[in-house]
Amino acid sequence: MIIVKIGGGKENNLKGVVEDLAALNEKFLIVHGANAVRDEIAAKMGFPTKTVTSVSGYSSVLSDEHAIDAIMMGYAGIQNKRLVELCQQHGINAVGLSGLDGKLVQGARNKGTLMMRDFSGKPKAVNKSLITLLLDNGYVPVICIPIIDENNFAINSENDDIVALLQDELHAETVIQLIEAPGFMDDLKDENSLVRTISKLELDAREAQVEGRMKRKMLALKKLAESGAQRILISDGRVAHPIQDALAGKGTTIQ
Amino acid sequence: MIIVKIGGGKENNLKGVVEDLAALNEKFLIVHGANAVRDEIAAKMGFPTKTVTSVSGYSSVLSDEHAIDAIMMGYAGIQNKRLVELCQQHGINAVGLSGLDGKLVQGARNKGTLMMRDFSGKPKAVNKSLITLLLDNGYVPVICIPIIDENNFAINSENDDIVALLQDELHAETVIQLIEAPGFMDDLKDENSLVRTISKLELDAREAQVEGRMKRKMLALKKLAESGAQRILISDGRVAHPIQDALAGKGTTIQ
Repeated sequence: MIIVKIGGGKENNLKGVVEDLAALNEKFLIVHGANAVRDEIAAKMGFPTKTVTSVSGYSSVLSDEHAIDAIMMGYAGIQNKRLVELCQQHGINAVGLSGLDGKLVQGARNKGTLMMRDFSGKPKAVNKSLITLLLDNGYVPVICIPIIDENNFAINSENDDIVALLQDELHAETVIQLIEAPGFMDDLKDENSLVRTISKLELDAREAQVEGRMKRKMLALKKLAESGAQRILISDGRVAHPIQDALAGKGTTIQ
Repeated sequence: MIIVKIGGGKENNLKGVVEDLAALNEKFLIVHGANAVRDEIAAKMGFPTKTVTSVSGYSSVLSDEHAIDAIMMGYAGIQNKRLVELCQQHGINAVGLSGLDGKLVQGARNKGTLMMRDFSGKPKAVNKSLITLLLDNGYVPVICIPIIDENNFAINSENDDIVALLQDELHAETVIQLIEAPGFMDDLKDENSLVRTISKLELDAREAQVEGRMKRKMLALKKLAESGAQRILISDGRVAHPIQDALAGKGTTIQ
């Protein structure tokens, strides 16, 4: 089994991803982002996406109620349904689901502040039986935020954490993370600085090396590595054959 | 089994609907509209919803590619996920699905004109096995447009036609249609003109009586009646207990 995570940037070649997936001879599921689409919608709707950075240097999106609406429109709405449509056009019988649907991804909500209710949190459990039910009957789950909190409210969450949790439950052999870069790079500004392999032990040092959202991503990669994926591939989503290239080891392999 | 159709106006008491459904001792599924939310989003996004009226007097929404985006955001995005969230808050394990997901509702696309590609069509088949799979495993399907055409493109379609087709396949004993009126009224402007019962034979005459979107609705009701629902209830979605009231016969019963 393969878990495929597709980043939410606009440059990912979704058609190429789906073409590659259609040719696979293995079960898989997709977790996708949609931050670019979400930000566009939120701006036009009159409640632009705001980000905050914690004192420890982790940055994240401010999740008020408007932000959840924007997530529903951008992730569960356009991005999820256009991706399901694309899958169907390539013979993949996709079923798009948010974490709310069948309580697919259950989370613990972050404590808000006096100033604002915080609709975000950490994923804690997945409805494995629903995923298995779909996979066993020939459907491919295409999963996105929002997820559902302890009181059954829609909340925002980090896709990397969701992927790590799914991996914990599903024990996929391979996790592919498609990003808008050739892989993990020593120097973010230099596409030639691609790091071919990172050992699990090295991940700590790498976490210290990066900033902002990338910091959070490295933390999630550590969790993912700890959860026992045999192969974690961070690879370029912008190329003609993103999945083929990832599986051929053209990006960064964590092992 | 009950098929519940909820209209897409803003005045429907969704909380009341879900509370009532949570107390039911019967399988059900939901088909919902979202035209009010869709129109709001489309206007803000800069591509307001346009309607056209055919020479025979049937009016419908102009379905260009922007309109499908607005449907994905408004129906499959906000309305579907907020309804699923509400269901989960009341112990109903809802799974929200568009007609694209698992090819749940398959349609035949209308021929466009030289001027424009038309992304709308008539529903022709449903993926009954997916619906049954979910219902048999304790999930409640919450269904909305878009549906999927012969070439696996997302298209717009009439909810009334989708409900009639679902009824054809699922043979529900009861179909409840919640609208923003007490039921079918002799005089649209007079809420006291509620018609308590309409026989199936009477539907033809009633169709001639109405205009615009209502005309299309009456045609769909005729199909629904022909497909053998024992009880079709058209009832008020705005009241404290929309489902209880519908089942108690407080709206219009077609029999």
